[in-house]
Amino acid sequence: MDRLPGFRDFYPEPLPHSDLWSADARQYIFDKWRSAARRYGFREYDGPPLEPLELFTTKSGEEIVGQLYNFTDKGQREIALRPEMTPTLARMVAAHERNYKKPIKWFAIPQLFRYERQQKGRLREHFQLNADIFGESDVAADAELIALLIDTLRSFGLTSKDFVIRLSSRNAWQSFYDDAMQKTGHQGANEYEFFQIIDKLERTDPSEAEKKLSALGFALADVNIFIAAGKPTPELEAILTNLAARGLGEFVKVDYHVIRGLAYYTGVVFEAFDVKGEFRAIAGGGRYDNLVKLISGGKASLPALGFGFGDVVLLELLKARGLLPKFDAKLDVFVLIEDENLRAPSLKLVHNLREAGQTVDYSLTPARPDKQFKRAQELNASFTAKLENASAVRVKNLSTRAEKTGSPDEAVRLLADC
Amino acid sequence: MDRLPGFRDFYPEPLPHSDLWSADARQYIFDKWRSAARRYGFREYDGPPLEPLELFTTKSGEEIVGQLYNFTDKGQREIALRPEMTPTLARMVAAHERNYKKPIKWFAIPQLFRYERQQKGRLREHFQLNADIFGESDVAADAELIALLIDTLRSFGLTSKDFVIRLSSRNAWQSFYDDAMQKTGHQGANEYEFFQIIDKLERTDPSEAEKKLSALGFALADVNIFIAAGKPTPELEAILTNLAARGLGEFVKVDYHVIRGLAYYTGVVFEAFDVKGEFRAIAGGGRYDNLVKLISGGKASLPALGFGFGDVVLLELLKARGLLPKFDAKLDVFVLIEDENLRAPSLKLVHNLREAGQTVDYSLTPARPDKQFKRAQELNASFTAKLENASAVRVKNLSTRAEKTGSPDEAVRLLADC
Repeated sequence: MDRLPGFRDFYPEPLPHSDLWSADARQYIFDKWRSAARRYGFREYDGPPLEPLELFTTKSGEEIVGQLYNFTDKGQREIALRPEMTPTLARMVAAHERNYKKPIKWFAIPQLFRYERQQKGRLREHFQLNADIFGESDVAADAELIALLIDTLRSFGLTSKDFVIRLSSRNAWQSFYDDAMQKTGHQGANEYEFFQIIDKLERTDPSEAEKKLSALGFALADVNIFIAAGKPTPELEAILTNLAARGLGEFVKVDYHVIRGLAYYTGVVFEAFDVKGEFRAIAGGGRYDNLVKLISGGKASLPALGFGFGDVVLLELLKARGLLPKFDAKLDVFVLIEDENLRAPSLKLVHNLREAGQTVDYSLTPARPDKQFKRAQELNASFTAKLENASAVRVKNLSTRAEKTGSPDEAVRLLADC
Repeated sequence: MDRLPGFRDFYPEPLPHSDLWSADARQYIFDKWRSAARRYGFREYDGPPLEPLELFTTKSGEEIVGQLYNFTDKGQREIALRPEMTPTLARMVAAHERNYKKPIKWFAIPQLFRYERQQKGRLREHFQLNADIFGESDVAADAELIALLIDTLRSFGLTSKDFVIRLSSRNAWQSFYDDAMQKTGHQGANEYEFFQIIDKLERTDPSEAEKKLSALGFALADVNIFIAAGKPTPELEAILTNLAARGLGEFVKVDYHVIRGLAYYTGVVFEAFDVKGEFRAIAGGGRYDNLVKLISGGKASLPALGFGFGDVVLLELLKARGLLPKFDAKLDVFVLIEDENLRAPSLKLVHNLREAGQTVDYSLTPARPDKQFKRAQELNASFTAKLENASAVRVKNLSTRAEKTGSPDEAVRLLADC
């Protein structure tokens, strides 16, 4: 019996096969994410992995359903496994924002799901760091959020040679669009289609792009000139200045190719890419000042911004750059039981060492001394500890081969001194 | 738009309403679980929250479907949200056990789902610590697993006044059953029904139990005498001796009321209960030596045992015993920006402190000094730091009110000395 296509099992390292996923690498990534978000003063939240389908269609329109893991439950409810965290977060914030001081800085590490037509190796779930700020309309909040993204990436050992944040603005494109409309006298009713074309521009054949743009009254040449100039708007200037003040200027550049396909962004948008351009976007986000109002049916309204940062591309990048540590078994102490008459006091020793916070293992059943020692080595134990008799323990440092002997009660101190 | 019935949102503390769930308490529980399992040498794994329906019906029979969160996906597959972790684990172990040294000691913290008829306040999801050992048939493994459960409970501050492990054995009941069959000359084909009656005995009216038992050829009196005697089998003796050697004897008692309803247990079984009997079982588990073979269709076979330990009853118990810490916002440093001309170097200071591992926040936009200080207090900052000018920072310890001034480059040292 196999698992469902597109889902992952996570195994402890060392992995028996290179195509398996590592539970240790996953935990390493979660720890780094959590630690960076906390240093920035973000607090953790979580919501249900299942939500009413309506929550997602309200935000993204009915066309999202084609990509959702959705179904009808036994209570005849239309529900979906969450494809993204933002609608859940907007719902949660709308319900209780009055009781939280602003700005609200929250993060989560949800597992997200999608159901697209099956492609080989394509995953149907992944994990994401989601970080969001609510209640602050100043771009100082955008800078704070982008700084968190940069520092989270840096905490994995990635440098400005590895990644860059491409910074853009819906407002800049809106002005471009409005100006062009005014010049040509066209009706300005095709913003969404225009944004979609810009979003896909880098992956579209120029003649095809030219055709699509002219249909809306634009020339590809004008679009390319606007992108090549990359002139920062005042809001983007403010963000660049803010990040430079932190010493993070080298990690960010204005790049109007980025616009983010999702319709709900309202201001600054950004994406993190690997500098060599080998991978898909590492992370992306932006401002969505209207979403809380939309989700709450007008009951609450708060400016908001956030990003999502997935585990799959990050893992590929860390592997490619040699930045993923090895996570073999690791033990502080392996307790050797060579005399079965000493099993009871040896169990007490195991227990006392664990009580003192040590990671400890031992042979559950009688085994030859050489087999026990081999097991200690397989588990990468730093020390062995062995009762010589009921009142004497010998500890050995397996790197230095130093040994110390003393009373079992002082075993923890012997380890520290050995 | 509300969340689905039976699902939880997890908010950061302080909670705006007492009926909300705390993301901080959840993380506290996860950290304790993870830390205890690691001290015992258990390694973390995880699997998909969705599995083919067949994985669960193979293990538990078709009747389990009534309690499952199951549905047909877009690919016409019958699938279910996992109601327990053991079938997934058995599948994972069966697939790759040859590449892992025995005993395999693994743990996970899955979210589990069930879909029962809606009862007020009844949850449809919860989290569980699952710890399992594969490849060791000796009861020394059962003792190791029970010791982990005891120490995990103890790590929350719970004592033998708060909880007890009720230890039992399928083998003991099997002997009782076989003996009775032999004596009365009945056919021994109703084991499953008999075990189900014993499982529910404490919650069944005696006359009703008497009736059901006689139908199978048993007398309630005999059953009660067997339970009251509570005579340990040799396997249970060995576990009691093992736990006593560790100093954990006071946490465990033989209690044949426990039998665990699930049909797949094969040997020692146990449950953790609060001593006052106010709550449902805190945790439960036992041996299931046949499951790997069943799930793998005979391709692999390994003795196995494990327990599940949920977050909901634990949380109730910790609250009732006053053992759940408060988790208000907590900040190392709040950086005050009282002169907007110093915002750029203040951002650099914020950044440097975060780089040094400090949790740091500040006012994103200009604010009156008293408002900034109030915010520092709301966030329970340990220190404030304020640039006097570009080359001097003043740090203040908000508990002792001690202050230190120095160069911004030495801010981290100033905090340590203040």
